[in-house]
Amino acid sequence: MPTLVALELAGIFVFAISGGLVAVRKDLDVFGVILLAGTTGLGGGFVRDLLIGATPPETLTDWRYLFVPVAAGLLTFGYHPALGRMERTINVFDAFGLALFCVAGALKALDYGLGPIPAALLGMTTGIGGGILRDLLAGRVPVVFRGELYATPALAGAFVAVMGTELDAPQSLVTFAGAMVCLVWRLLAIFRGWQAPRPTGSASV
Amino acid sequence: MPTLVALELAGIFVFAISGGLVAVRKDLDVFGVILLAGTTGLGGGFVRDLLIGATPPETLTDWRYLFVPVAAGLLTFGYHPALGRMERTINVFDAFGLALFCVAGALKALDYGLGPIPAALLGMTTGIGGGILRDLLAGRVPVVFRGELYATPALAGAFVAVMGTELDAPQSLVTFAGAMVCLVWRLLAIFRGWQAPRPTGSASV
Amino acid sequence: MPTLVALELAGIFVFAISGGLVAVRKDLDVFGVILLAGTTGLGGGFVRDLLIGATPPETLTDWRYLFVPVAAGLLTFGYHPALGRMERTINVFDAFGLALFCVAGALKALDYGLGPIPAALLGMTTGIGGGILRDLLAGRVPVVFRGELYATPALAGAFVAVMGTELDAPQSLVTFAGAMVCLVWRLLAIFRGWQAPRPTGSASV
Repeated sequence: MPTLVALELAGIFVFAISGGLVAVRKDLDVFGVILLAGTTGLGGGFVRDLLIGATPPETLTDWRYLFVPVAAGLLTFGYHPALGRMERTINVFDAFGLALFCVAGALKALDYGLGPIPAALLGMTTGIGGGILRDLLAGRVPVVFRGELYATPALAGAFVAVMGTELDAPQSLVTFAGAMVCLVWRLLAIFRGWQAPRPTGSASV
Repeated sequence: MPTLVALELAGIFVFAISGGLVAVRKDLDVFGVILLAGTTGLGGGFVRDLLIGATPPETLTDWRYLFVPVAAGLLTFGYHPALGRMERTINVFDAFGLALFCVAGALKALDYGLGPIPAALLGMTTGIGGGILRDLLAGRVPVVFRGELYATPALAGAFVAVMGTELDAPQSLVTFAGAMVCLVWRLLAIFRGWQAPRPTGSASV
Repeated sequence: MPTLVALELAGIFVFAISGGLVAVRKDLDVFGVILLAGTTGLGGGFVRDLLIGATPPETLTDWRYLFVPVAAGLLTFGYHPALGRMERTINVFDAFGLALFCVAGALKALDYGLGPIPAALLGMTTGIGGGILRDLLAGRVPVVFRGELYATPALAGAFVAVMGTELDAPQSLVTFAGAMVCLVWRLLAIFRGWQAPRPTGSASV
């Protein structure tokens, strides 16, 4: 479906920008910026595809999916001051990407015969995996583990999509419902500053 | 065999607790604690399964293997002060998990047609891989590389299991012998403070 | 072809030495040195094989490919002061390894049915992947992202090999041309101190 491809490319683009910005802030060179952009944009899908055995990953064999993160990386390399000031806006677009990827990832895992719980987990992985790889390569603890409410909306969206499919709801409805659950939750987290709970008294351990 | 599954679940549980404790000490949020617990508990097997092409990994498709690390993560999140004080005890249980996983991993690799040396290496990987991923995600150099005698017992146990199988010894004997070699060696390392040798004069490099 | 295997083993050896030196400088124990040597020598090929679905990786099932990094690791552990002083020489040999791996990796990806662009990217990955994994495990941002001109020659060499193959040039010529492009570029970067561009004004972000 051309719409879905266009949405996916847009999602990869936004994810890749976030990867490029982290790379610029770590003072990586232009190649590091492009590679971090690519890893952030495509990494979550790669991890999912490796785990379900869908190799080579589809995005690796389609030049459009490779071109988008390179373009995003070069754009970030050239215009990072402007992009850096737009970070809140980028976060909002990023929430759309997350909503799309968690649902698309979960549905792909179901297609490959996985059960509902693994499929929901792989949907979440598709959404958050790129950011985790980005942070690993940039030498920082993944932000998704540090209070940022990011993984939970992705898991919830994936779960809704999986449950809907199990109940034989039409796929367009399932996709929409799952994506909306993730999106609304994530946007609320951004705008209200919601944080995931931290361990109590961990300093004393 | 139900006994083996129960043992594996117990091993995953202990590994997951160790992952959860690292996450708490890094002040990760509740999701980070659960995800680090899961990665530590299941990661070694995931890496092995990816390398031998056994995708999707079995543990990803069985809800029991997914439930255990979530439970361990939540338990660690809630009771980390008590668990932190029991660390020596946890290390002892962890040695049992290591002994079990190195043997089970090696035998699975043999089942998938790998030769004895790769199978022994993959057995070791099954035992130590989760901890390496845990440390990568937590932003520290893997402890298994820093003097802790942990990988060698796992390799030795896996090697014994592989050699026994090659000599057509009965599988129960092979499993037991391999696990005991790993367990005794690891427990001696814990209680006698054995360390792997470090490079001489490396500070001067 | 025995010559190719010998060249590959030599390349793995040099890569493994570079991994061992990083491990020694991080004061890892003897096991950490061997494992980092092995990861650096074989890791790029592992990542490529996982992504193209060629599991288990060939190098994991052939004892010669496993023996070489262990030997390199032990050698580095024992003689790191001497090896550390030879670092420039090692860098030159490393350039030969890079040239060989980027071409061999790209051709293998073509063999597995990937298109020219993904194959060139996987050739680059084969060349640089081991060093990236080495740096991740050693807890530092990959040097390949930090100005060192290393990935670009690998991508160029892989691209030449892929293009030559697409144009039905004889494989020996394709291999030679791709490897020479990578080698000359990389050696020039070493001897003239070429650096990849960094983002402008990134400190102000």
